[in-house]
Amino acid sequence: MEENKENIQFQLSNELIERVENLIETNNDKDLQDLLDEFHYADIAEILEEVDLEQALYVIKLLDSETTSDVLMELDDDDREKVLKNLSAKEIAEEVEELDSDDAADIIAELPEERQKRVINQIEDEEHKAEIQELLTYDDDSAGGLMAKELVKVYETWTVAGCLRRIKGQAQDVTRVHSVYVVDKSDKLVGRLSLKDLIVTKNEVKIADISKSVDSVNVYDHGEDVAKVMQKYDLEAIPVIDDDQTLVGRITIDDIVDFIKEEAEKDYQMAAGIVQDVEADDSILELTRARLPWLFLGLVGGVGAFLIMEGFQDAFTKYAVLFFFTPLIAAMAGNVGVQSSAIIVQGLANDDIKGSINNRLIKEMFLATLNGIILALFLFLFVWIYSGEITKALAISVSLIVVIIVAGIIGTFIPLFLDKRGIDPAIATGPFITTSNDIFGILIYFWIAKLILGI
Amino acid sequence: MEENKENIQFQLSNELIERVENLIETNNDKDLQDLLDEFHYADIAEILEEVDLEQALYVIKLLDSETTSDVLMELDDDDREKVLKNLSAKEIAEEVEELDSDDAADIIAELPEERQKRVINQIEDEEHKAEIQELLTYDDDSAGGLMAKELVKVYETWTVAGCLRRIKGQAQDVTRVHSVYVVDKSDKLVGRLSLKDLIVTKNEVKIADISKSVDSVNVYDHGEDVAKVMQKYDLEAIPVIDDDQTLVGRITIDDIVDFIKEEAEKDYQMAAGIVQDVEADDSILELTRARLPWLFLGLVGGVGAFLIMEGFQDAFTKYAVLFFFTPLIAAMAGNVGVQSSAIIVQGLANDDIKGSINNRLIKEMFLATLNGIILALFLFLFVWIYSGEITKALAISVSLIVVIIVAGIIGTFIPLFLDKRGIDPAIATGPFITTSNDIFGILIYFWIAKLILGI
Repeated sequence: MEENKENIQFQLSNELIERVENLIETNNDKDLQDLLDEFHYADIAEILEEVDLEQALYVIKLLDSETTSDVLMELDDDDREKVLKNLSAKEIAEEVEELDSDDAADIIAELPEERQKRVINQIEDEEHKAEIQELLTYDDDSAGGLMAKELVKVYETWTVAGCLRRIKGQAQDVTRVHSVYVVDKSDKLVGRLSLKDLIVTKNEVKIADISKSVDSVNVYDHGEDVAKVMQKYDLEAIPVIDDDQTLVGRITIDDIVDFIKEEAEKDYQMAAGIVQDVEADDSILELTRARLPWLFLGLVGGVGAFLIMEGFQDAFTKYAVLFFFTPLIAAMAGNVGVQSSAIIVQGLANDDIKGSINNRLIKEMFLATLNGIILALFLFLFVWIYSGEITKALAISVSLIVVIIVAGIIGTFIPLFLDKRGIDPAIATGPFITTSNDIFGILIYFWIAKLILGI
Repeated sequence: MEENKENIQFQLSNELIERVENLIETNNDKDLQDLLDEFHYADIAEILEEVDLEQALYVIKLLDSETTSDVLMELDDDDREKVLKNLSAKEIAEEVEELDSDDAADIIAELPEERQKRVINQIEDEEHKAEIQELLTYDDDSAGGLMAKELVKVYETWTVAGCLRRIKGQAQDVTRVHSVYVVDKSDKLVGRLSLKDLIVTKNEVKIADISKSVDSVNVYDHGEDVAKVMQKYDLEAIPVIDDDQTLVGRITIDDIVDFIKEEAEKDYQMAAGIVQDVEADDSILELTRARLPWLFLGLVGGVGAFLIMEGFQDAFTKYAVLFFFTPLIAAMAGNVGVQSSAIIVQGLANDDIKGSINNRLIKEMFLATLNGIILALFLFLFVWIYSGEITKALAISVSLIVVIIVAGIIGTFIPLFLDKRGIDPAIATGPFITTSNDIFGILIYFWIAKLILGI
């Protein structure tokens, strides 16, 4: 019980880190090993992220590679890169030998090309080496890039008893057995079995008779599609086949969970105008590189707005008050645009967008008109009461309605358009929409105000 | 093979929907049943979302409740609500009998209170009824609200052989067996076993000797924390215990995947200024309710900006150009604020934010200053070249730097502050930050410009 409790409530404390640092400095390997043995590899990774690089390397060289290989996988990308730089090709190969083929390939893929070759050459297990080399040929985001080669495979002609016997051999190498995959004599995937099925079925039954139909993905399918299939059908693992239907690997749900989270974070950052995957703890330079490009776009947009306003300058010496509402107009145009694009982007990601672009635009137009009229009514009352000039109030409010409608249409159209062109529509939310809507909004606002005020 | 292929490549086509509609209209139950039997329940749900309510009800009443209960779970919330409204309490109870306790409780929780009781009374299986009633007492977002009661439990005193025998009985009711949970004689959780362990271990071995330590969560833990633990330790299922360490249920990764996705979508929508969970296909009224509140906040902010600018009106005659840059200033303040808050919000969600608030603010100040100087330099050159007035160019650019710094600090501080107060910091990104930064930005801009220009 106690052991159990400790595991759950792991909390990284300063005391713990100091204790680890002390043990390292005093070269007290025995106690250090005993202390770290208590922890899950994910917890050890958290500890290593808090100590110096030399100290982290000390720990990694001290513990056996069965543990440290898992620890390495859990480290932040940046930290892992630093650690790998300080390990020899031989040492990395030793870590890689302990990992499942998918993790092994991921680690190797992070190394510079020259180093990749040297590490691969040092891998002793020829089968593992071949598997890793195969996985390295696939695109990162494809099913092939996400799958592992480790799986439990049985032939349809076997019996349950024979199957259980052989599984005892195969399963030792497979970290987690979700399903047993059934293949025909030419290794083509024909079905699957759960371990539960094997346990609850009589020994003499033929595998072909209890094999169930199975979903699979092609090795070149995109990771997002794999995630959708696994989520839709609530799968915990999915077999991967090649174009000949031959079983080549399997993808487990834990890798998909990580993939889903990364994609969500990327979309969120894109919507917030951050162009590169960064974390709060990254360096100021990295953060600047990630943030500056969109800010620069905003600057250009702002200069555009300036030029527009300057163009209307002469017309409005009499109506300076119009200029005071430009931040309001720009803000409303930006907000409406971001809202409508966000809904479209999410709908596209979830395959929820049915029907034609035209229908979408018409719906958005209604929606924007409704929102626009409600908001414009408030603005009208404010300006009218505040300034006492009804024409001015009317000009500003009518402009606002039109601006909101146009902003909604732009916000709907751009992601749909990008998606049709095969560009990730998520890029449309955030500064891109805000900036273009700012400019269009202000332009429309002055046009309409000019028209109504008869300048 | 063919069957297998069909499954994967399920594509909702108009032909398919028309075929289903025709079979319904001609009351051709036999063919309809044969057709739908080919599909996964998640695919049937997709089909039903495309047909009329009456047609959907026809299909649900036609198919057996083993299938339709799963179909119901896969429907959109809105569609499910409509279907449930048209089923009797008895019919809903029959569906619920087929579901695992967690799904059953979720469906019942969606019903109006009066109806909940009537449906529960109609459930025949007393054990299932008691389990559902227990699950209904937990908060939606808690471990108790996410867990299912179905699990495979063995006592530590059993042998592997006895264990396998008993599992054959228990496992029939459990959709997916990830782990077998080991309890002591008073039903307290003491460890776990994988089915693989059971299969590869000799029959006479005692369970206590092969039981492994296990992570668990408390029934009152928040779903987000459960998701973090399962993700960190790559778990596919986690047992849930009460305050006495008694095993009360288990949570499987597929529910957590849905939870993670929903949370990510909620955060994304919040950042985009959408206050209610909506989808692109929701009604215009629902979409308006979700979007209008933040837009209204933007309107109030815009009026605030108007009042500020009006306060500086006297400067307008001589320095009209200052007013033409207000959209630029507001946009930059908004963008910087959203960027810094998004990074903090994500860091908080991932527990990546270490160190004090002060350190964060100092880092953000440096970052904003760096960004600000680079951007201000461009703006300075533009204004100088364009207008030929160096003082004016200086005033506007220096203001921009200060505005960006303040915007960065506000964007960093607000989410950290909300988080300390126990409020979801995600609310800070989006219109909230944009609006407050617009106002502060414009105010600071005029102050500093006034100071430099000596107005």
